[in-house]
This record gives sequence, structure tokens and C-alpha cells, in this order.
Amino acid sequence: MTNDTPKTGLQLRSLVTDDGYLKLLLKEAPVPEPGEDEVVVRIEATPINPSDQATLISPADVSTGETTGSGAATEYRAKLRPGLESRVKPRIGKPLAAGNEGAGTVVKAGSGKAAQALLGKTVAVMDGALYCQYRKVNVMQCLPLNEGTSAREGASSFVNPLTALGMVETMRREGFKAIIHTAAASNLGQMLNRLCLKDGVELINIVRKPEQAELLKSQGAKYVCNSSDADFSQQLTAAIEATGAYVAFDATGGGELGSRILTCMEKAALKDTELPGPYGSNTFKQLYIYGSLDLSPTVISRNFGFSWGINAWLLTPFLQKVGPERTLELQKRVADELTTTFASHYSDEISLTDALKADIVAGYSQQATGKKYLINPSL
Amino acid sequence: MTNDTPKTGLQLRSLVTDDGYLKLLLKEAPVPEPGEDEVVVRIEATPINPSDQATLISPADVSTGETTGSGAATEYRAKLRPGLESRVKPRIGKPLAAGNEGAGTVVKAGSGKAAQALLGKTVAVMDGALYCQYRKVNVMQCLPLNEGTSAREGASSFVNPLTALGMVETMRREGFKAIIHTAAASNLGQMLNRLCLKDGVELINIVRKPEQAELLKSQGAKYVCNSSDADFSQQLTAAIEATGAYVAFDATGGGELGSRILTCMEKAALKDTELPGPYGSNTFKQLYIYGSLDLSPTVISRNFGFSWGINAWLLTPFLQKVGPERTLELQKRVADELTTTFASHYSDEISLTDALKADIVAGYSQQATGKKYLINPSL
Repeated sequence: MTNDTPKTGLQLRSLVTDDGYLKLLLKEAPVPEPGEDEVVVRIEATPINPSDQATLISPADVSTGETTGSGAATEYRAKLRPGLESRVKPRIGKPLAAGNEGAGTVVKAGSGKAAQALLGKTVAVMDGALYCQYRKVNVMQCLPLNEGTSAREGASSFVNPLTALGMVETMRREGFKAIIHTAAASNLGQMLNRLCLKDGVELINIVRKPEQAELLKSQGAKYVCNSSDADFSQQLTAAIEATGAYVAFDATGGGELGSRILTCMEKAALKDTELPGPYGSNTFKQLYIYGSLDLSPTVISRNFGFSWGINAWLLTPFLQKVGPERTLELQKRVADELTTTFASHYSDEISLTDALKADIVAGYSQQATGKKYLINPSL
Repeated sequence: MTNDTPKTGLQLRSLVTDDGYLKLLLKEAPVPEPGEDEVVVRIEATPINPSDQATLISPADVSTGETTGSGAATEYRAKLRPGLESRVKPRIGKPLAAGNEGAGTVVKAGSGKAAQALLGKTVAVMDGALYCQYRKVNVMQCLPLNEGTSAREGASSFVNPLTALGMVETMRREGFKAIIHTAAASNLGQMLNRLCLKDGVELINIVRKPEQAELLKSQGAKYVCNSSDADFSQQLTAAIEATGAYVAFDATGGGELGSRILTCMEKAALKDTELPGPYGSNTFKQLYIYGSLDLSPTVISRNFGFSWGINAWLLTPFLQKVGPERTLELQKRVADELTTTFASHYSDEISLTDALKADIVAGYSQQATGKKYLINPSL
């Protein structure tokens, strides 16, 4: 297998320049040699997740994007969005890698037993630089896929599945008994819905459009609230009363949605209280912000008493909290249910070079529900 | 002593009416008889704290206030502030008591040993209805004041002292090593400053006016940042770098101050980081909102990474968390340092009837720094 492997491979880089541009470019680099416990994976499928976009493209105003050159010399360039100067300053002049997860074939393996056992296998990988053709990783970063599972099927084995599992586990660990989830028609949202149905956890799905509500209902969702409906607050309050969902995971981050959710939680908590005290209910209400689909400030109206928390939620600190043993158990479950509970769907499969084309950049940077891009660097 | 006690006493009530008014009125009621473990306290000093105002006066637009009658027939009336309809609905038609803490003389005592031991003593009391002349309470609600301590000196023995102690204890329990405090020139703020100086805890005081900064500096404060200064963010970031203060207690609640504090914490945390990742620093940053001096929404810009929490902080849940033994220890310390570390200052001493006069209501409802009202129901 090693014999087929070329000497060099392409790697995608995101670069902020000191004259106010973000560039995407390809770098040709030698295919690395693995150390004892390392393998080299030919990456065949790697998704563009919202969590990749922060490094890859978020600072750019993609409406100004243009692409020049072709093949390995392709280059994308867009102006920076205004107001980001201080935030991007540390990365000026440094070409950054991106791509947090993917899958492919192990084409080289170090001398260690664990590495040798993976040679020729299809593995899923978690890393920060998978938008490339060949990537050297430690065997611990690899999840061997079950026989018959393709790289495309295994491309999203970590971020979304572990996030969905992490939400349910966070709910249990913190003593809540049901979950509210926003942007619920996303790939992750549909996955969480399947997981909750399978595990018997009540889930309130919040969407913005009637067709998203229909989609989730067709997949068995019991509670779906459309935030564009005039009676959204009543719908949501009733669903919270029915389920006791006092923990919410919000992918939007900005605007008033989080505050509205906390307000509905408080209304549900006070349902049977004749005369609430000045500090509201004793029911603890938790909002986790795990994404920034809406980049505007979070606006919190504080009309939901004095028993609440708003926190950022990220996968990596969650996995650190539960520890390596539990993480391995969760990963094993993902591998076993990769084509059912944890299946992902992609609207577009593109090459590394495609990922630098202005119209395609404009497409994936939108993070629109139902549009999910998969890069296949081996195309 | 029982012989001097009249048969009835006045009690202040706050009433929301169904035609859109908040009224303050006085009710004449029999002086109660104590049960075995109860005492009756003649209330001689009870402060108007921000935490009392929620029930007492917050729903009213005090610019519309007017007072009629005199003596026990005095009545205050103001229109409700607009937009509060659903929030005040549960209390319409119910005359509510107020007054969370105070001090006075035990004039009647039940047959129990603990009750009898308090007869004739000056005690501080924690309760929810102390804006009255005589109040029956359980002996457990009483803190006997040390010999020579007056009711006026003991009037604020709970809310501010235990809140200041609670902030320092919360800092320690959660692994932080210094504190940021807003509205720092308040009675509570000056108390927290004395407590931190005494206990060797670094404190960053945030104020809005130069004279408040001078006041705190004259009391030994080392770090004072004025949020009205153009270089406030630089001042605060430098103070956080110097102290490692990653927990803040914010009395204002509304607006952008909390978000600015979290942003400065993140800047300090990233000081020595050459290239921060897309999720910011790993330093956990905590903002506690414990008041609502600014009733506008909390606006959070989320430019401080993904390791943070924003929570409501209240005294009662804190005391429940540390438990009754620790609470007693803290109360003992308050009694011992009531005229030093935990001394309170009042700008105005008023009678129960005064508390219903429109100009005085307008005064105390402002919650202005340096203006602190004490009700003496025995006047």
C-alpha cells in the first residue's frame, strides 16, 4: 500500500494578511513518515462543521470573495469583516490549518503494534488539520470503523455524535430530565432527535420554519416549536410544563432566543405558584450556548427570577470532565451506530480545490440548514 | 417590660390594585402573642435595601406618586410602570409586607428557655415583614447583639454583611483568588472593601464617578477602575493581570458592563498567548449578577472565548449551599465586627409614616450611591 502513496500532498491553509484580507490557499508538502505509534491517513472525507469555520472562513466578508489560479495554485481572497482587527491580529501572517474530523485509509504505519494493526484500515480521525490529502496522527486519535463502513459514512464520527451524546450526558449529570435544543433541524439536531428517541429522553426541538418542523415530525419528534410563530412562547411553555425541560442547548448564541427560552422555563416553573416572591421560582434554569450562528450580542431580559445560569458549552471540556474511559465508551457507541443513530447527510461533496472557489465558499460559509459540505481531498 | 407594650401596632403594606396603581398603606393590627420558641420584637431600625424594593416599590412609576391623609391613615399611590402587567398580576389585591432585616428590643417572649433568654435584649432579625412596629419571630431568626450595640448599629446585620462574606466565600469555594465588584462605592461595596483588606483578598472596585474612586481609595482600596474613563478597559485588564481576578459580582445587571468585564478577563488571560485558538483561553471566567440597578437587558458580546459562566447570585441559596453551621459562624463574625468591618451608614432616618410620603419615596427608590434610608418604626 505504501508503494502507491505519492511523495507529496496538498494541504489547505487559511491566512489573514496585514493588508486586511483572508486568503485560502493550498500548500504542497511532503507526505510525512510515521513514528512508532503513528499512522499516515489518506483523508477521503472531511466535513465542514460550524466549529471549523471559525478558523477557516469566519473573519472574511465572503461577499467580497474572489478566486484566482487553478489546481494547486488556486487562491481565494476576501476582505476581512470590519471590527475584527484586534481579534485577528494574533494570526496575521500565519497560515493556519483547519479541519477537526474526517476519515480515510491508513497508508503508512509506524513500527508499534497498535499502528501496524491499523494499516490498510478505514479510520475516523479527530485532529485540527484534516483539510489535506495526507495527515500523520497518533493511533489514539483514530477510531477504527466497523467492517463495511465507508470513509464518507465515518467522516463525522466525532463532533456531532459526541456533541449529541454530550448534551444527553450533561442533562443527566446535572439532574435535568429533558432537553431543549435550538437550530433543531440541523444535521446535529436530527441526530440528537434520533438519539433522544432511542434513549427515551424527552426533547423539545426549536426551529425557525414550518418545513423544518415537518421534517422533524416526520422523523418522530414529539415536541417541535417554531420560533417564527406568533404563539411560540405559549407552545414552548406548554412543552416545558409537559416535559420538565430546564436545560437548553442553543446553537444560535446571539439575539433574544436564549432569553425567551429562560422566560418560558420560568413561566412553566411558576405554573402552580399563586404568588411568586420577588426572586421568582427556585427551579434552576440552565442555558448552554454552544454555537454562534447569530453573531450579534446575546440579549438577556432577566425576567426569569434569580435561579439560572448561562454558560458556554464545548465538546472538548466536556470530554475532559467525563474522562478518557467514558470518552472511549461513547466513541464505541458512535462506531456501532454510525449508519443509524449517528448517520450524517451531505448536500455537497467537493475537492480541496473546490473549497477555494468563491461561489462554493459563499455556499458553505452560510451554514444554512440542509446544506452540509463534505470535502474529499482525494478527489 | 410587657406592661409598656401597646395592644396594637402599625404595619406597612404594598398593594397593587387592578386599576393600575401601587399603593403603600399602614395597617393597624394587634401586637401578637409569642409561642413557646417565639419572641415579639419592637422594631427600632430597619433599612431599605435594594432587595426590599422589589416588593415595596419597584413596580411603581414614582414620578406619578402622591400622598394623602396623615398618621395611620396616610396613603401613597403611584401608577404602575408600563409593561409590568403580567409580572404584577399575581399580587393584585394582596397587601404585601416587606422589610428583610432590622433590629430592636424583645418585648415579649414565649415560655421556652431560648425565648426567655432574649427578653429585654437588643436583637437583629431576619424576616420578610419588618416594616412594622411589632413583629413576632422565631428565636432562630434572632441574632443577639453584643452588649453596647444599638438597634441602629445592628439594623443591617444580615443582608450586606452576609453578602460580602458570601462573595469572598464563593470566590474561595470556586477556586478563584481575587474579586471584581461593581457599584463598589455602595454601602455593601465599602463593606466588601474593608472585609477584603482585613482578610488579605485582592479586590478590584468598579465605580462610575471620580469622587467614588477617591472615597474608596481614601479607605485603602488598591484597585479602583472608573467605568466612565476612556481607558477603563485598559485599567481593568491591567488590574486583572495583577490580581488574577476571574470572578466578578455585578450589582447593575443591565447593559454592557458585565460583558466588558468578561472581555477584559479574557484579554488578561490571553496576555502571554501568542496565537489563541478559535475558542479563546482555557481560563474560566465567572460573572455573578446579584442586583438590578440597571433594569435594561444584559447585553453580552461573546468575544471572550468559550470558557465562561453568567449566573444569578443570591444570598439565600448561598446560605443553603454552605449549610446552617457555616451560616452561624458567619453570623457570629458579623456580630463581633458590627461596628468595624460590617458597619453601615445611613443618610436618612425616617418613620413608617415618612416612608409613605411622595418626596421620600422618590428619594429612596432612586437607590443612589451614598443615599441609604433607615426606617425607625418606633419614631
